[in-house]
Amino acid sequence: MKIKAINPNTTLEMTENIGRVADRYTQDTTEIIAVSPERGPVSIESYYDDYLAVPGLLEEILTAEDDIDAFIVACWGDPGIEACREVTDKPVVGIAEASMYMANMLGAKFSVATILPRARDFIEAAVKKTGMESNCASVRCTDLTVIETETAREATIEGLLEVSWEAIEEDGAEVICLGCAGMGGLDEALEAELPVPVIDSVGAAAVLAESLVTLGKSTSSVMTYKRPESKLQRGYPDHFQFSDESPTADD
Amino acid sequence: MKIKAINPNTTLEMTENIGRVADRYTQDTTEIIAVSPERGPVSIESYYDDYLAVPGLLEEILTAEDDIDAFIVACWGDPGIEACREVTDKPVVGIAEASMYMANMLGAKFSVATILPRARDFIEAAVKKTGMESNCASVRCTDLTVIETETAREATIEGLLEVSWEAIEEDGAEVICLGCAGMGGLDEALEAELPVPVIDSVGAAAVLAESLVTLGKSTSSVMTYKRPESKLQRGYPDHFQFSDESPTADD
Amino acid sequence: MKIKAINPNTTLEMTENIGRVADRYTQDTTEIIAVSPERGPVSIESYYDDYLAVPGLLEEILTAEDDIDAFIVACWGDPGIEACREVTDKPVVGIAEASMYMANMLGAKFSVATILPRARDFIEAAVKKTGMESNCASVRCTDLTVIETETAREATIEGLLEVSWEAIEEDGAEVICLGCAGMGGLDEALEAELPVPVIDSVGAAAVLAESLVTLGKSTSSVMTYKRPESKLQRGYPDHFQFSDESPTADD
Amino acid sequence: MKIKAINPNTTLEMTENIGRVADRYTQDTTEIIAVSPERGPVSIESYYDDYLAVPGLLEEILTAEDDIDAFIVACWGDPGIEACREVTDKPVVGIAEASMYMANMLGAKFSVATILPRARDFIEAAVKKTGMESNCASVRCTDLTVIETETAREATIEGLLEVSWEAIEEDGAEVICLGCAGMGGLDEALEAELPVPVIDSVGAAAVLAESLVTLGKSTSSVMTYKRPESKLQRGYPDHFQFSDESPTADD
Amino acid sequence: MKIKAINPNTTLEMTENIGRVADRYTQDTTEIIAVSPERGPVSIESYYDDYLAVPGLLEEILTAEDDIDAFIVACWGDPGIEACREVTDKPVVGIAEASMYMANMLGAKFSVATILPRARDFIEAAVKKTGMESNCASVRCTDLTVIETETAREATIEGLLEVSWEAIEEDGAEVICLGCAGMGGLDEALEAELPVPVIDSVGAAAVLAESLVTLGKSTSSVMTYKRPESKLQRGYPDHFQFSDESPTADD
Amino acid sequence: MKIKAINPNTTLEMTENIGRVADRYTQDTTEIIAVSPERGPVSIESYYDDYLAVPGLLEEILTAEDDIDAFIVACWGDPGIEACREVTDKPVVGIAEASMYMANMLGAKFSVATILPRARDFIEAAVKKTGMESNCASVRCTDLTVIETETAREATIEGLLEVSWEAIEEDGAEVICLGCAGMGGLDEALEAELPVPVIDSVGAAAVLAESLVTLGKSTSSVMTYKRPESKLQRGYPDHFQFSDESPTADD
Repeated sequence: MKIKAINPNTTLEMTENIGRVADRYTQDTTEIIAVSPERGPVSIESYYDDYLAVPGLLEEILTAEDDIDAFIVACWGDPGIEACREVTDKPVVGIAEASMYMANMLGAKFSVATILPRARDFIEAAVKKTGMESNCASVRCTDLTVIETETAREATIEGLLEVSWEAIEEDGAEVICLGCAGMGGLDEALEAELPVPVIDSVGAAAVLAESLVTLGKSTSSVMTYKRPESKLQRGYPDHFQFSDESPTADD
Repeated sequence: MKIKAINPNTTLEMTENIGRVADRYTQDTTEIIAVSPERGPVSIESYYDDYLAVPGLLEEILTAEDDIDAFIVACWGDPGIEACREVTDKPVVGIAEASMYMANMLGAKFSVATILPRARDFIEAAVKKTGMESNCASVRCTDLTVIETETAREATIEGLLEVSWEAIEEDGAEVICLGCAGMGGLDEALEAELPVPVIDSVGAAAVLAESLVTLGKSTSSVMTYKRPESKLQRGYPDHFQFSDESPTADD
Repeated sequence: MKIKAINPNTTLEMTENIGRVADRYTQDTTEIIAVSPERGPVSIESYYDDYLAVPGLLEEILTAEDDIDAFIVACWGDPGIEACREVTDKPVVGIAEASMYMANMLGAKFSVATILPRARDFIEAAVKKTGMESNCASVRCTDLTVIETETAREATIEGLLEVSWEAIEEDGAEVICLGCAGMGGLDEALEAELPVPVIDSVGAAAVLAESLVTLGKSTSSVMTYKRPESKLQRGYPDHFQFSDESPTADD
Repeated sequence: MKIKAINPNTTLEMTENIGRVADRYTQDTTEIIAVSPERGPVSIESYYDDYLAVPGLLEEILTAEDDIDAFIVACWGDPGIEACREVTDKPVVGIAEASMYMANMLGAKFSVATILPRARDFIEAAVKKTGMESNCASVRCTDLTVIETETAREATIEGLLEVSWEAIEEDGAEVICLGCAGMGGLDEALEAELPVPVIDSVGAAAVLAESLVTLGKSTSSVMTYKRPESKLQRGYPDHFQFSDESPTADD
Repeated sequence: MKIKAINPNTTLEMTENIGRVADRYTQDTTEIIAVSPERGPVSIESYYDDYLAVPGLLEEILTAEDDIDAFIVACWGDPGIEACREVTDKPVVGIAEASMYMANMLGAKFSVATILPRARDFIEAAVKKTGMESNCASVRCTDLTVIETETAREATIEGLLEVSWEAIEEDGAEVICLGCAGMGGLDEALEAELPVPVIDSVGAAAVLAESLVTLGKSTSSVMTYKRPESKLQRGYPDHFQFSDESPTADD
Repeated sequence: MKIKAINPNTTLEMTENIGRVADRYTQDTTEIIAVSPERGPVSIESYYDDYLAVPGLLEEILTAEDDIDAFIVACWGDPGIEACREVTDKPVVGIAEASMYMANMLGAKFSVATILPRARDFIEAAVKKTGMESNCASVRCTDLTVIETETAREATIEGLLEVSWEAIEEDGAEVICLGCAGMGGLDEALEAELPVPVIDSVGAAAVLAESLVTLGKSTSSVMTYKRPESKLQRGYPDHFQFSDESPTADD
């Protein structure tokens, strides 16, 4: 099977890491194709970055080869995931939701350890959207930018350890979700220091995407995630235009 | 004072109507500038349309003249409004939130009468984001497209009457919010037939935007709605790029 | 237009300040009539005060001149506002709800800075009733009585600054609502010291009342806010008695 | 022990029935004193009635003999009960809360069968205030006025049977709470026809008030239900005035 | 009347204390029969203990004499109470729910003071199940085991005082519920030191069970608490087997 | 890897089907060991059945061979799953939670199609415990017993189709979760008739259990799911006894 893991930002080092992590946890027969959009922010830290990233993210689905079996949206916050689900009926898995489901099976309460304080509202919105609010002990922010999670691994581990301990001791967290795709691959280093499981959100999404394909499931297109109406998307290239005749990306 | 009312879709007839309604309810000394983005969908009916509309919407704020005092986002769903609030410290008012606040002061429960069934989830997400869930009796969808609300006024009134009566009699609605910018100007025709107040969401946003300016308020930039970090937005024009030196749109 | 701003307590200095603030933010053509009931507590700090204030508050609506266009209930807690809405179909705006709506458009989370600790439950009940619970970061109490907010302005500013900083730094507040009508007019002094917008609740109610009149709206009388049934209100003066023949205050 | 059961409306036939029911379920050594205030509405069906009833209700506590051990507020909606708890440290039990607690121990979900449709919001507010929202299957209104529940017993039973069946069959109710003090004494007639327990709310409050006295408990006066501050209650008789020296009603 | 108070653990000293407390608060004509199951854990501190206790608890109901009028489940957490309600139509009262109802009538917010930290989730689950979440200020754990609450009364008082003060001062608790049956009889010693009412949960359940009998109520058997279907319970003694012919324990 | 799938009831035909389904969706290198406890009900349809099933279920974990990598609890309702997580640190996955996570990634709202009406409360409790309440459109019951789901496959399909259509058309369901382990293997037959994805809950649990092992995760034992305290479990065999020296099942 082929899974396309889309890093919605345009920093290729992060994309490579995402691919590596997804590949590590999936079966040998599963091919991971990790990509970044052509356009969009080099990192997603604000709602502004988030919204500017989505058209490029959608483009990666709209122009995907026919033989892709599932998609991963590799930004904690699952930006634009509802729109992704409209334009393909292949399963689309967000790393935020995936990590919370895994966490919820391992402990009574989880916390999200993440980047800059300004992202808190954005992160909390993802928790709410997924419906996991009552099981989330806290969102704990560090001072790390997204880029630093990739380029300053030691500082990232240090920052995450600090807020994870706070989450465990003050908020009652029993599991930690790593709240940024750039933190992919750090779960083991953290588990070596912490008394709780740590969820690599990219890894969680990879195995869940694979699972949905194995179960033979497609996204529901009966209502909310129906194919978009045929209409002009002014100023966007042809592959963004849906027409009555055009098939969806995966018909 | 100058208020820029942005219709996030690219249908100019709707933009004109939005301008007319906003002008009608604001003071003589308030100038309404109604615009549509250069790019984006001709109507917003899906999450896909919603996300493709936001970059154009943001562009209208990023390139706004310095003397704009407030912005209106004229699509029920308040798409991208968090990002709008990051790029300007002038007040930004969404027509969804504005109409719900007004409704909440006039009756114990309100319903939203809106377009196609597929928009229900999108509309409900706006209700939740605003925090008005417990006062919302129901979201009632018609079979109307966004364009029809503008071009087929009689059919629109008919469709809205039908679902409004259902909301009143079955769901306990005591106020109706018109859940689409294209329905601007229809409140009086509906109130002539219905026993409850009907909120013109565009009108509600116009008076609220004016009110915030009168009160002398700016958007909070202490945390969530801080100016976006300086970084490359690949593939976007210069006016989308924030740099450390660049002022915000309204400094 | 004429707006009657009712201070439900019987301290006239506070009434005058309320009138001044409401007048400051409304149009020149809007006349503000600020009044206190003949009977009731000199300040509202407990549920007891609250309930003893309501009959006098209702009396001010029941005996209002015919040409009043809207009413303001100027006590954070919006005491008796449901009953007010039953006895008139002119819009009635509470300062609690008004300030929360304004706050909700300016930041992701707001806190209420208010009087004595004992009022916390009363204040929280107002937040819940309005439906704004999920957007309220905290209610922060000072040691100030209602009267002191009017008579000891320096101490009031000091007390409010202290709890506002706590709300911002510990609770994540991005906007502050001033949780007492006696604090009317203090927003600017506080904004000079704080990094967030501060909402003058009386000002917020004034512009919202004006807005509802501008939009041409009446309170819904289809169900909850129907005119009270005709019956004997034993021990109350004539103007409290509804009979089948009697018109409502504003027919 | 002596329990004062206060019917907050001024219809004495109802007061007598309330006394009879409370007496029936309490011990021989418990004396029930059933009273109505001197002033207030003859029935409580709107928020207006509710607020006008509270001063008279408070007066019955403020002027109560020293040897009263507990109070009952006999109106479904528990009007003014927070204020009652401020002015006495003897337990105060509302019939709404009491009936919901009993119902919650007998079935997985309960419904409230009550009076006129306009009371729905008022009744739902009582459910929320008590915190029982998630266990309440529905509020089902009849066309009965409060007075009719007392004077037209056959019609009342018929009306209650009709909505109770709807609650059981359509809403999943497993217990019915009788949502009006005037319905006191009807539980047995209804249980003869219905397959579920029916809670006589007055009876429930009587045994709970007795229980709290037996347990030796007083109302908490540490914060919310502290004695009201000393201040002038303009236009109210002397017994409404709290002064620094005056003891509370039950010191 | 006869009330069977079942201590679901197998520590007889605790059972005796439970009987003593229940007896103290019930009428002279009420006989309390305090028992422990034959099998089950000596104390309930984990979900594991909880689930192993339930079959023994059910056995005490299944084999109860016909003349029992009500049952008490004397473990804070109300383990297995839904199943208890299926096998008898006599009222079954849990000490957790009973204490929360009493607390809710005495203060605006209550906290639960309880045993070991590991029980927090278990205790919180009981609060949620009862529907009292919004009125619960906090769950405060001590370092006490269940057995210590019975055998080390001084240390228990000390531990409870410490966390009760924290609940009052930091969480806003106005009432304390004693969150373990072993704490029965300690309310007075705690009230002597604390400024708030303290609820003896066993006492609360005893008076509520008596109250339900006095009101003449049975558990609803229309749906959720129907008698279990006739089927083989492999490996359980005869009295656990329901057959189509067999009466329920109390038919 | 080895996964032990425990059918908590004692009907072996169902156990075999569970094993078959779990095997079908897991990798060739994954061995599924499907078992039933020695004791417990032949089917779980009431809380009574549920509680009597748990000791046998726990026994299957307590006596599991050392080389088991993960456990599945194959009853929709996830009975006793918290206790299971205390006695092993290998991942434990419930079929209820697993199916809801899968459903939540495929549609905006899901419904659960399940057995007898009496199970509704039990099923809803599982939804709440998992935290998925806000995404659950409805629980729809059939007239099927658990045994019939296994022995009367045609009638089961028919019953499920009927309630699934109701869920889709009346409740807005976009995905259906099969709410009983006995329905394992029916998803394809239902998807052939329905316009939405149907989740085989056993299959979902199987791939999730495999996923957690692949990610290398253990259950958190820092707090709630700590190993039970050492104490006597009276009347239970030796393997139920935890002592200070004894290792956990999987040390």
